[in-house]
Amino acid sequence: MDASTIDIEKLVRVIPDYPKTGIIFRDVTTLFADADGLRVTIEAMAAPFRDAGIDLIVGVDARGFIIGGAMGMAMGKGFVPIRKRGKLPPEVYREEYTLEYGTSEVEINVNAVPKGARVLLVDDLIATGGTAMAAVKLVERVGGTVAAASFTIDLPDIGGSKLLRAQGVEVFSVLSYPGD
Amino acid sequence: MDASTIDIEKLVRVIPDYPKTGIIFRDVTTLFADADGLRVTIEAMAAPFRDAGIDLIVGVDARGFIIGGAMGMAMGKGFVPIRKRGKLPPEVYREEYTLEYGTSEVEINVNAVPKGARVLLVDDLIATGGTAMAAVKLVERVGGTVAAASFTIDLPDIGGSKLLRAQGVEVFSVLSYPGD
Repeated sequence: MDASTIDIEKLVRVIPDYPKTGIIFRDVTTLFADADGLRVTIEAMAAPFRDAGIDLIVGVDARGFIIGGAMGMAMGKGFVPIRKRGKLPPEVYREEYTLEYGTSEVEINVNAVPKGARVLLVDDLIATGGTAMAAVKLVERVGGTVAAASFTIDLPDIGGSKLLRAQGVEVFSVLSYPGD
Repeated sequence: MDASTIDIEKLVRVIPDYPKTGIIFRDVTTLFADADGLRVTIEAMAAPFRDAGIDLIVGVDARGFIIGGAMGMAMGKGFVPIRKRGKLPPEVYREEYTLEYGTSEVEINVNAVPKGARVLLVDDLIATGGTAMAAVKLVERVGGTVAAASFTIDLPDIGGSKLLRAQGVEVFSVLSYPGD
């Protein structure tokens, strides 16, 4: 079975007005709970970057870890986690980024990425791009480059994928919801 | 390359006296950052359960997600996350469990597991088994059974793997550190 024979989109649970009125929450856990859904989604996320000279997959705590481990297996690459503050053993670099309300901080181990490595950043969703841009900065601080980013879902009107492209990152998503 | 030709153990970073004096922290992120390390570890974790009639992989927030996504791809199964309280959209079941200091709570979506499903629980480490036993209870509450559990590392003297076996769960680990 390949991407053309199963409807990935139907496997994403849509929750209107969650976490608040006016927001449509798209829950990928129902997609990944389905064996074909997981495999077809991951193969689709990997396909554009198989000949892109990628050395390593990076993903952010926590849904990005599900995708990161799966992408590592699908592409034959290692996976490096970026975590919320205080979750990684020392030594780490830290980046603060802005959320809708307040800020958050993410960390990477200082030796996690070989110097000059070309990194593929993965996550389930790109919206404002705050987390993704923090990840780009952390990968640069440890000596690598986020060459490309692959997402399950893009909300392009919110601007995150545009922000990433302006940094020279090649961006792909399996599903895209303009207007969300 | 297979498990006999690379030394998985050497890829695990050992941090003495972290997070406190007398504790040896074994950091699997360095293992998973290595392409062969990730693949060989995941294949080893999957191998004992390929003919065990497993329907689904379940893993706990957050390192269990890296392994869960990878195991889903390696075994051709879907992956269902168990998360820390407040991270999953509704409806959820919740279990409280004891940590060294205080308690923690984990949740699963009420429809996450098909009735009667045989689940393989995965994580990087089994120590006291508190998290794993909470996962076993949550899978039962949604109508499935944790038939087996596969870990990267077992600390057998701390008793978690014994607890799981007493519940009828078949337990496997790639690495084992008696005395830790």
